[in-house]
Amino acid sequence: MNDTLEAAPIYSRLAEDLVTLINTGQLRPGERLPSVRTLSQQRKVSATTAVAALRALEMRGLVEARPQSGYFVRASASAAPMPAMTRLSTQARRVGIDTVMVRMIEASGDPGIAPLGAATADPACFPAKRLQRSISSTLRRRPRLLVEYALFAAGTDALRHQIARRYAELGCAVREDEIIVTNGCMEALNLALQTLTKPGDTIAIESPCYYGLLQVIQSLGLKALEIATHPGDGLSVDALEEALQRRDKDPIKACLVSANFSNPMGATMPDAQKRRLVELCERHDIPLIEDDIYGDLQHSGSRPRPARAFDKHHSVLLCSSFSKTLAPGARIGWICAGRRAEEIRMRKFATSIATPALLQDTLADILAAGGYERHLLKLRRAFATQVAQVSAAVCAHFPAGTRITRPRGGLLIWVELPRGIDTLALYDQALAEGVNFAPGPLFSPSGRYRNFLRLNCGRTMTPAIDHALMKLGKLMQRAL
Amino acid sequence: MNDTLEAAPIYSRLAEDLVTLINTGQLRPGERLPSVRTLSQQRKVSATTAVAALRALEMRGLVEARPQSGYFVRASASAAPMPAMTRLSTQARRVGIDTVMVRMIEASGDPGIAPLGAATADPACFPAKRLQRSISSTLRRRPRLLVEYALFAAGTDALRHQIARRYAELGCAVREDEIIVTNGCMEALNLALQTLTKPGDTIAIESPCYYGLLQVIQSLGLKALEIATHPGDGLSVDALEEALQRRDKDPIKACLVSANFSNPMGATMPDAQKRRLVELCERHDIPLIEDDIYGDLQHSGSRPRPARAFDKHHSVLLCSSFSKTLAPGARIGWICAGRRAEEIRMRKFATSIATPALLQDTLADILAAGGYERHLLKLRRAFATQVAQVSAAVCAHFPAGTRITRPRGGLLIWVELPRGIDTLALYDQALAEGVNFAPGPLFSPSGRYRNFLRLNCGRTMTPAIDHALMKLGKLMQRAL
Repeated sequence: MNDTLEAAPIYSRLAEDLVTLINTGQLRPGERLPSVRTLSQQRKVSATTAVAALRALEMRGLVEARPQSGYFVRASASAAPMPAMTRLSTQARRVGIDTVMVRMIEASGDPGIAPLGAATADPACFPAKRLQRSISSTLRRRPRLLVEYALFAAGTDALRHQIARRYAELGCAVREDEIIVTNGCMEALNLALQTLTKPGDTIAIESPCYYGLLQVIQSLGLKALEIATHPGDGLSVDALEEALQRRDKDPIKACLVSANFSNPMGATMPDAQKRRLVELCERHDIPLIEDDIYGDLQHSGSRPRPARAFDKHHSVLLCSSFSKTLAPGARIGWICAGRRAEEIRMRKFATSIATPALLQDTLADILAAGGYERHLLKLRRAFATQVAQVSAAVCAHFPAGTRITRPRGGLLIWVELPRGIDTLALYDQALAEGVNFAPGPLFSPSGRYRNFLRLNCGRTMTPAIDHALMKLGKLMQRAL
Repeated sequence: MNDTLEAAPIYSRLAEDLVTLINTGQLRPGERLPSVRTLSQQRKVSATTAVAALRALEMRGLVEARPQSGYFVRASASAAPMPAMTRLSTQARRVGIDTVMVRMIEASGDPGIAPLGAATADPACFPAKRLQRSISSTLRRRPRLLVEYALFAAGTDALRHQIARRYAELGCAVREDEIIVTNGCMEALNLALQTLTKPGDTIAIESPCYYGLLQVIQSLGLKALEIATHPGDGLSVDALEEALQRRDKDPIKACLVSANFSNPMGATMPDAQKRRLVELCERHDIPLIEDDIYGDLQHSGSRPRPARAFDKHHSVLLCSSFSKTLAPGARIGWICAGRRAEEIRMRKFATSIATPALLQDTLADILAAGGYERHLLKLRRAFATQVAQVSAAVCAHFPAGTRITRPRGGLLIWVELPRGIDTLALYDQALAEGVNFAPGPLFSPSGRYRNFLRLNCGRTMTPAIDHALMKLGKLMQRAL
C-alpha cells in the first residue's frame, strides 16, 4: 500500500471491499476478480484507481495477476497462515497484575489513539435511539422501577424469560429460574469462580486467555493452568484430559472455557469437541464454566451452540452479557447456574444485592419486540467486514512471516509476529505514535506470547486505522 | 390498645400523632398534652375518641393522667428503656449462611405480609417522577451513554464531583479522584474487604451487625470478631482497643464500622469516639472500613460526620450509596478509597468492569440541580415519624420488660425482648400470620441475640402494621 496517507482513501476503500469479498468467501480461492473496466463502471472510479486497488491486493499477497486473464484470488487467500497450536509447560501459575493492561484500557478511551486495543465496537453499531425509546416506555409502564428496592432479586421475570427463550431457539435447555442477572459477564464469572473454588485452587484455562479473566483469577487468589488451544478449533480437549490425569497433587478444581469466538483467538470449538469437553468434565467431576459473551456474533451462517447445549446434567455454568451485542453501557450480563442456582443467587446478594431492574426490562423490551435479530444481523456483517479489513491491512503492513487467526465470529484477531519482535517492548513506542493494541503477554499468566498481539476490529475501518497499522508495521520492521 | 381492629383506626391515628410529637421531642417529658376539648375541636373527632387516644397512650406508659390537670408526658417517655451494651466472648467466628435470612428478604417483597423485615422504605418516599425526567434529559444530552463501553471507569466525572462536593460541605475532605462508583454499597464493601484482607483473616465488626455484611464476610472466607457495641453510642472503642492488644496470634486485619445510624441498632458514635477510633486504627496500622449508608438520614439537626472526617491520612475507606436516600432501584454506591484508590479501581475492573454511566449521571443531575436536599428533608421527617410510631406500637403491644433503641436517624429499631422469647422460633408463626421481622440471630455470626429482633420503620404506619405488631406481641406473650 501507498506510503502517503493522502492517496489512500480513494483506491483503498475499493481494495478493502474486495478484501471483504475474499475474506467472507464471496470470492473464493482461484476465482477471477472483476476486471478493471467492470470495477471502474460499477464503482464509478477511474481505471487508474481500479488498477491501484488490484495492485494493492497483489502486494498483500491476496490475489495474483495472470497474463491476459486478469486478477485471481490466491489459493492461500487471507494471505497469512494461522498461528500454530499453543505449546505449554505443565505448571500452574499465579497471575500477576499488569500495569500495561491498565494503560492499554485507558488508551482505548482516547479519541486521539487508533482504537485497536480494548475489544470495543463503534458506539454507532448499537441502537442508541431504540434503547432510548425503550427506556422511556419501560419507565412509563413501570414508574417505580428506580424507587423500588429489588431485594434478593435473581433478575426481572421479563429479561430472564427472553434469555431462556433465545437459548431454547438454539436447542440449549435453560430454565428461567436458574438464570441470575448480573452486572455484566465479569460479575457472572466472579460469582461462578467464587462459588466453585477457594483461594489457592488451580483452574484450567485456555491459552491465550482474555486478560480480564486473568484479573479475576488473580483477584480471587486462584492459580491458572494454561491448556493448549488451537487458533481455529479452540481448547484442546486432549490436552485438558492429559492435564486432568496428570495432576494428582494439585488437582484442577474448575475449567473455564470460551467455546465460541474466544478472546483473543476467535477460535470456535467444533460441536463434537464441545460434547467431549462436557463429558470429560462430568466424568472427572470438574465444574465447567463457559464464557459465551461473543457467541451471538458469528460472521455468517448459524449461531454456534454453547457447550452447555451438550450438558445433560445442568452442571455447566453458562455466563454471558449484552455488552458486546446490544448495550455496552448497560452492564447487563447473566449466569445460567443450573444446579448451582441457589448458591449463586445467595452470592449475588452478598456481592451487589441486585442488578438495576430498569436496565433489565429495557433490554427485555427490545428482545421481546423482535428488533434484536435484525440488529444482530447488521452487527455481524459489520464485524465480518472489519475483521477482514484489519486482517488485510495486517497482511499488507506487518513483516513477512506474520500469522493471523481467521475467526468466524467476534471482533478480534490474534497476530503472531516473527520471533524477534517483542510486543511489550514495542508498546510504548506504538502508544507514543498514537497506536493502541493489546500485547500478547497480557493473555498469559506466565508471560508467554511476547511476539503476539491482539487487534480490536470493532471500529469502522478508516484511513487513519490503516495508517496506524502501517506505522505499527514499520515499528516492527525496525525492531527486527 | 383495644383488641378489636374495627375500633382501631379512628382513635389510634390520633394516638400515633401524639406519639410522634413525643418521640420527636415536640412534646417534652413533663409537658402537658392538649386537653380532650382542644383535641376534639382541632381534630374534628368526638370527645370519646380523644379520651380513647389519651388512654391508649397512658396504657403504653407514655403519658400519665394527673387529677384535675390533664395528661402529661412521662419522664421516661418513649417508654421502654434502651437495650444494654452488648457483652461478648473474645473468640472470632466463621460466619454461617442463614436460610432464615433468605426467607425474611423474600417475604419483604410480598404485599400480603407486614413489611417489618428488610430495611426498605415506601417507594412513594422517593422522587420517581424527578428521576424519570432526569433520566430522559440525561439521555437527550448524552445519547451514547447506553452504547459506549465504559472501560476501566472509576465513575462518571459528574457524579464523582457531586459526591465530593457533598462531603466537602460536611467538612470531610474527599478528592474526586479517590472515588470509585460501585454497584451499591455492597459492592463497595466487597471491594474494600477483598483488597485489605485474605481468606482466613479476622476482621473486627460491631455486634449486632447487619446480616448482609455478615454474608460478605462469609463469602470471602473471613472470620468476624464481634466487638461490644452500645445501642446509643455505637462501637465501643475501649472494647476494640482491648481486642487489638489481646490478639497476638490471630491479629485483627481490618475494622468495619457504621458510625452513623448503624444497622440494626441505629447507634451513632459521638465525634470524640470517631476520632479515637480513627487514631486507634491508625496507631495499630489496621485499615478502617466505614459503612455510612444511613448517614444522610438524621431525624433532626445536622448530619453527623463520617469517621473519615477525622482521618488525616486518607486511610479510612468510606463506603455508601444512594439506595436508602434517592433511588433504591439504581444500585449506585461508591467507595472513597483514599490511598487505596488505584488498587480498588483495579479490583472494580476485575469485579464488574464499570457501573452504568446513565444511572450515575441521572443521579448527578438531581444532585446538581439542588432538589436533593429538599427531598432529604422530607424523607428524614417521614422516617422520624415512622420510627416513633413503630416504637410506640411496640411499647403498646410487646410484653413487659421489652427494650427498644431510640435511633436519631435511619429507619430501623432494635428490640430486646424478655429472656424467654426466642425470635428465631417465633419467626415461622409470625410469617404464617402475615408479619415479617428480622430475628436477632441474623445479626451475629455466633448466633447470639435470640431474644432480639429488628423492625423496619421505612413504611408509612397503617392500622395493618399496628395490627401486625399487636399479633406479634400476642405470639410473644404466648411464648413466655
